[in-house]
Amino acid sequence: MRSIDLNADLGEGYGPWAMGDDAAVFALVSSANVACGGHASDPETMFRTLTLARERGVSVGAHPSYPDLLGFGRRRLPASAAEIERFVAAQVGALLAVAALAGHPVRHVKPHGALANVAAAERDVADAIARSVWAVDRELAVLAISGTELERAARDAGLRVFSEIYADRGYTPAGQLMPRSQPGALIHDAEEAAARLVVFFDSGVMPTVDGGGVRLAADSICVHGDNPAAVAMATRVRATLIEQRLTIAPFVERA
Amino acid sequence: MRSIDLNADLGEGYGPWAMGDDAAVFALVSSANVACGGHASDPETMFRTLTLARERGVSVGAHPSYPDLLGFGRRRLPASAAEIERFVAAQVGALLAVAALAGHPVRHVKPHGALANVAAAERDVADAIARSVWAVDRELAVLAISGTELERAARDAGLRVFSEIYADRGYTPAGQLMPRSQPGALIHDAEEAAARLVVFFDSGVMPTVDGGGVRLAADSICVHGDNPAAVAMATRVRATLIEQRLTIAPFVERA
Amino acid sequence: MRSIDLNADLGEGYGPWAMGDDAAVFALVSSANVACGGHASDPETMFRTLTLARERGVSVGAHPSYPDLLGFGRRRLPASAAEIERFVAAQVGALLAVAALAGHPVRHVKPHGALANVAAAERDVADAIARSVWAVDRELAVLAISGTELERAARDAGLRVFSEIYADRGYTPAGQLMPRSQPGALIHDAEEAAARLVVFFDSGVMPTVDGGGVRLAADSICVHGDNPAAVAMATRVRATLIEQRLTIAPFVERA
Amino acid sequence: MRSIDLNADLGEGYGPWAMGDDAAVFALVSSANVACGGHASDPETMFRTLTLARERGVSVGAHPSYPDLLGFGRRRLPASAAEIERFVAAQVGALLAVAALAGHPVRHVKPHGALANVAAAERDVADAIARSVWAVDRELAVLAISGTELERAARDAGLRVFSEIYADRGYTPAGQLMPRSQPGALIHDAEEAAARLVVFFDSGVMPTVDGGGVRLAADSICVHGDNPAAVAMATRVRATLIEQRLTIAPFVERA
Repeated sequence: MRSIDLNADLGEGYGPWAMGDDAAVFALVSSANVACGGHASDPETMFRTLTLARERGVSVGAHPSYPDLLGFGRRRLPASAAEIERFVAAQVGALLAVAALAGHPVRHVKPHGALANVAAAERDVADAIARSVWAVDRELAVLAISGTELERAARDAGLRVFSEIYADRGYTPAGQLMPRSQPGALIHDAEEAAARLVVFFDSGVMPTVDGGGVRLAADSICVHGDNPAAVAMATRVRATLIEQRLTIAPFVERA
Repeated sequence: MRSIDLNADLGEGYGPWAMGDDAAVFALVSSANVACGGHASDPETMFRTLTLARERGVSVGAHPSYPDLLGFGRRRLPASAAEIERFVAAQVGALLAVAALAGHPVRHVKPHGALANVAAAERDVADAIARSVWAVDRELAVLAISGTELERAARDAGLRVFSEIYADRGYTPAGQLMPRSQPGALIHDAEEAAARLVVFFDSGVMPTVDGGGVRLAADSICVHGDNPAAVAMATRVRATLIEQRLTIAPFVERA
Repeated sequence: MRSIDLNADLGEGYGPWAMGDDAAVFALVSSANVACGGHASDPETMFRTLTLARERGVSVGAHPSYPDLLGFGRRRLPASAAEIERFVAAQVGALLAVAALAGHPVRHVKPHGALANVAAAERDVADAIARSVWAVDRELAVLAISGTELERAARDAGLRVFSEIYADRGYTPAGQLMPRSQPGALIHDAEEAAARLVVFFDSGVMPTVDGGGVRLAADSICVHGDNPAAVAMATRVRATLIEQRLTIAPFVERA
Repeated sequence: MRSIDLNADLGEGYGPWAMGDDAAVFALVSSANVACGGHASDPETMFRTLTLARERGVSVGAHPSYPDLLGFGRRRLPASAAEIERFVAAQVGALLAVAALAGHPVRHVKPHGALANVAAAERDVADAIARSVWAVDRELAVLAISGTELERAARDAGLRVFSEIYADRGYTPAGQLMPRSQPGALIHDAEEAAARLVVFFDSGVMPTVDGGGVRLAADSICVHGDNPAAVAMATRVRATLIEQRLTIAPFVERA
């Protein structure tokens, strides 16, 4: 029986503020990327999120970011690769320690927002992240967008790497995410998103914005939960996958 | 041949700001308590400090604090024992991870400032810190003021505990630090501080503010380096110890 | 025709995070206490909130707080009266300047959360806030809970002072807010809250938790908007006041 | 009798940390650019700095910056002109309010670090700063590097503008600061710096890196005080100016 992972970014509150409905999303996913103080979160929010993940049996990863609460990690800050290596370590280390308290181990790392975009395209930043993960705990897997520099850097560093696709994003014929500024970048209709995934899991080929398709590898599907429409889409995607006789299970448990 | 440790708080800068002359103090001590983002420091400062410690062969510990940059960790913030448990974990975890990058392992934990004072006197806070250290890495030692709740809590938790005395502080007949608000609390004269330590290492008895003495255990002597007079005192204390044929060596290497 | 003011705490987001539904609450109130960087907000959030207030014709005040984003200003931080005087000035000054950009003047100051509680009970803190407001702009009014030290301090400082009552809080026979830890402190039923206000506006006497009543002065009624039930209650209270032929108008416009 | 202003950046500490020797520099300058929470400072540091300025009779200005304590405002952060307009207002407003408490009025605004560089070169950012200053208090002067976009924007906005030259920087034949990465950018010798100023005040022509000279206007000379060599240079420059029978007086008092 085939299995697939659903992952979402969770624990993205800060102090008194929440982002989205974590409890609803935890019920849908098998892996969670947990904010660790860069774009969001604080020790209490980390602990609450990790405890919820443990109770729900959801596998967790660290979700490091440019240190930028005000910009939610969506802005590229001026930082050298060496500086990125250090702040990623500090953020991942903080989450590992709070996870030890919560009794739920961190299993992977996935960069957030602007840091993910830069690490996808620039090898020196990708290498910095890979070095950081390797130094902190070489058993940690990396969750990367398929075909990116981060995927190559982590593999070359000797780390386990898994690839993700997006349920709600359009793909170019080259297998890359359509830039958000372009038509077809975002899929707003849950039925359409689910139908695309059916095609993909039947064929291994993802529909592309030009009407064609591209062969992609996928260990996980990224869903969002920061607004009600996103939760509805994730719910629909999950139901479709189960109809397709896929098991929803953490990617880190794959061979 | 007897050995003793000299420890100091180091790496207490933040971004562009420095606190004291770390390079001078690293040349004097065998152990450093390294700020980890609570009262001071950031990933770059941590990395620079840990790299300097490795180069100088100085053993390092984490120096967690109430999260209070503006107050430098000297103010007791309202926080439950559970909240303290979590922010201590996050700070220690961040330092452990940056230390992995710097190639220099963290060997102990010593709470800073107001957190140290509260952990000395209140068992629930002391227990929270001990639980946090145990969860994050049970091989970490705790450096505690002799006779405090933290010493008992860490010992009861199964952690290795070492005790410290202060070169520049007066002691009560009960073996406690004289409160800073009282006469005799601070020793400003380096000769006097050194002479007291000679008495102590000859006899095991520390002079007290009432003219008597108290038997104390000591694995380490805490010195300060945040101003030129403190560095001068630490230099004098170190010279006196060496004249007394003591070896200066990290306490964590004691049996 | 009698008029009354409805006030609420607004603009309490931070960066990417929102707190409650400001747009809904702006449609209900005549005065808004706008967060100014202490417990919440940042220059962009301030500007957005002040612009919305101008568009809705809602009078605005500054809502200074202990500088404590993580604790949302609900914790009493260690700070001297002199320190409070300075951070209140800095926060109020920041809001005044952003309000100048938004083209909507700040008309009053109301302390937030723990700072409001301390200023209600301790004259030295109340005096510090009054001195701060006077220095920054003596035309600013102070919105205070009736019978508090802040009310007296602001009046003695020569500032205009207005008093507020709470729609959703129980009162002691002495006319003070029932502490949140006590039964009867919070009124959850919108009908009950509205009925109490009818009694009050007919008689000038507020029902108290012991079944009696206390004569209170009120220039404004404080409502909340940080959750849907609170918005529902504020909507009901507003409707009741209008049924009672009260005009909803900013307190600062009262003679 | 001719007069000239000496200005320096002061109050650049944060909480427990100091930057340079403010007391020494206050004895040398006639105007101070005071950090206001962007790259440095907090309400206590602002108050202390403004009080010292009042006691020394030094005119003060606000020194707004990208909000970037860790980078000390030296990094260009991603921010739109509209966002810059708002954070500049909030920072200037905070300083104006604390200055009201300290009893010493803020008279000018000079952007700091990366913000100054961007405002020198890009008209939309320069305009944003000019709009912000105008909205907050149109009596505030702007201190700008001669020939920059900020100078033009502030003048076009109707603000009073004063120009500054640098005692320790080389100039291009076009009258611009030599980039720090180029030879001749920095003048390390106090005698040389002073001699250049003698030439300039005799002739109105500043020596340039190619051995020629350029005619410049100057209302103020910027000196630095963040290290002992800088203080020594500022002391020498001041002595030279007085030998040249120039009076040291705040530029804002010029007609």
